Amino acid sequence: MRPKDFGAASSTESGDELWRHTQQLRVRYSETDQMGTFYNSRPLEWFECGRSEGFRALGLPYATLEERGLFFPLVEARVEYLGRAQYDDLLEMTSYFSWAGRARLKCRVEIVHAESRKPVVAGHTIHAFTDREGRAIRPPDWFHQLLKSALASSARL
Amino acid sequence: MRPKDFGAASSTESGDELWRHTQQLRVRYSETDQMGTFYNSRPLEWFECGRSEGFRALGLPYATLEERGLFFPLVEARVEYLGRAQYDDLLEMTSYFSWAGRARLKCRVEIVHAESRKPVVAGHTIHAFTDREGRAIRPPDWFHQLLKSALASSARL
Amino acid sequence: MRPKDFGAASSTESGDELWRHTQQLRVRYSETDQMGTFYNSRPLEWFECGRSEGFRALGLPYATLEERGLFFPLVEARVEYLGRAQYDDLLEMTSYFSWAGRARLKCRVEIVHAESRKPVVAGHTIHAFTDREGRAIRPPDWFHQLLKSALASSARL
Amino acid sequence: MRPKDFGAASSTESGDELWRHTQQLRVRYSETDQMGTFYNSRPLEWFECGRSEGFRALGLPYATLEERGLFFPLVEARVEYLGRAQYDDLLEMTSYFSWAGRARLKCRVEIVHAESRKPVVAGHTIHAFTDREGRAIRPPDWFHQLLKSALASSARL
Repeated sequence: MRPKDFGAASSTESGDELWRHTQQLRVRYSETDQMGTFYNSRPLEWFECGRSEGFRALGLPYATLEERGLFFPLVEARVEYLGRAQYDDLLEMTSYFSWAGRARLKCRVEIVHAESRKPVVAGHTIHAFTDREGRAIRPPDWFHQLLKSALASSARL
Repeated sequence: MRPKDFGAASSTESGDELWRHTQQLRVRYSETDQMGTFYNSRPLEWFECGRSEGFRALGLPYATLEERGLFFPLVEARVEYLGRAQYDDLLEMTSYFSWAGRARLKCRVEIVHAESRKPVVAGHTIHAFTDREGRAIRPPDWFHQLLKSALASSARL
Repeated sequence: MRPKDFGAASSTESGDELWRHTQQLRVRYSETDQMGTFYNSRPLEWFECGRSEGFRALGLPYATLEERGLFFPLVEARVEYLGRAQYDDLLEMTSYFSWAGRARLKCRVEIVHAESRKPVVAGHTIHAFTDREGRAIRPPDWFHQLLKSALASSARL
Repeated sequence: MRPKDFGAASSTESGDELWRHTQQLRVRYSETDQMGTFYNSRPLEWFECGRSEGFRALGLPYATLEERGLFFPLVEARVEYLGRAQYDDLLEMTSYFSWAGRARLKCRVEIVHAESRKPVVAGHTIHAFTDREGRAIRPPDWFHQLLKSALASSARL
């Protein structure tokens, strides 16, 4: 995994980038299909790895948020398939996090071949906030506070 | 699986519905995640089952098309998550097939709870045509002919 | 799905077959890999579909058992890979249910090509009984009662 | 990923350990199920990552072997489920490679929690050798030569 790469998070307006995270992944054999490239649903699994590592890098591991009763189910996902990638290819994925309105989080993702930089996939997911029972809620104050201080810490680095 | 349900396919203009297909599926245990509902990448796997059965119902099994060297890789996918569905829930999925321009196929999909008709997922995939080596091609004449006569046969039913 | 096929369940001794269930399934595109056959972990997902449908056919849907707080996590799995199967191939899977000792359930499974009867996979899973928190428990009396009367009903059919 | 860990490979007799490889992995969200632990087929996907990295660490990337027309399909798999592991848990997996007879390769695998060392999964897979068309073959001479010199190099490290 590469070092964290945080953009300047000067604002928390909807649409502004809050932070970003870059990591590497290899295409698993189980992720290929008989067309010889990755199966079309795998990018959504990779996007989820990007969110996981992106939140961890910010100091807010997603598992901890779930333990506190905060869940981020998907509202919408979009994937553009830009190039092939085969078993064992080393890919680089960058996730860009921002607000989408006041109660939704957006993760935009770009995946390229790590060496050639040839694009493989672009896309995004949009997330609502829910409690443990799956009821839609506003992102709670404690989350806003945690996010704000995590962004402040990472900006100082 | 429910009987085929073909719309009136009076035209092959881009955007016009060519045919549609409805089928049922049950959420597998392997498709759930720890949030207690289906994992977010599963709908893309279900969409693919819809295309498979939709082509079979039309008399053009997808496996046969691949044997003749015609592949339909995804160019784009979009999923809207509209409601929860749990392990063993019986869902009903309808796939609507149309052209998207002259060289791309679009499959729009709606998934609802089979009994309550509550929406679960909506979305679409857009497909290019490629040969065995993954090179983009125009849909070949034999495919247009096969599709035309399959649509004519199904309209007579 | 084919009709239920119950063996004569004259006993509930460990090792004796309690009931069996046969169903059909098609290899999904998402289940293939670049070797052109099904990926090696898919049979465990199919085995789970066999347990699901086997319990439903007996009148004890697995989802209902989980709602009552009874879970059957795997203790052990074994898969023998006997033949290839490709995307869209129609397979027939038979699951044989028996006790393995007093507190474990065994599901033996055979998968063949539906038409040619050529073997594809054989194997088994062994299941413990746990409560909602994952603690190992003895199968509760209500489960023994339910199973006994379900087997009696199915034997009368 | 941790550094390679090669055992002393003094022999290539059936059953003797040829080499071993240890790596870390995190449980992905997509790998959980509604029981709150990893779904039962995921260990077979992890085992495959262990083989991939194990061969790469030895200097024989599996993708290269496939390019030369050598494939290692599974003949048999066995998984023992020894403990729970949740989303984001950090696991450590060690793969032990040996011959099983003259024409089969065996990979034994142990997975534990990286910190507590509590066992999660143990198991193995047994692999045949086939050509591109899936026909069983003896492991070719060039593979024996490659393996021998790779083992010799790694023993010198």
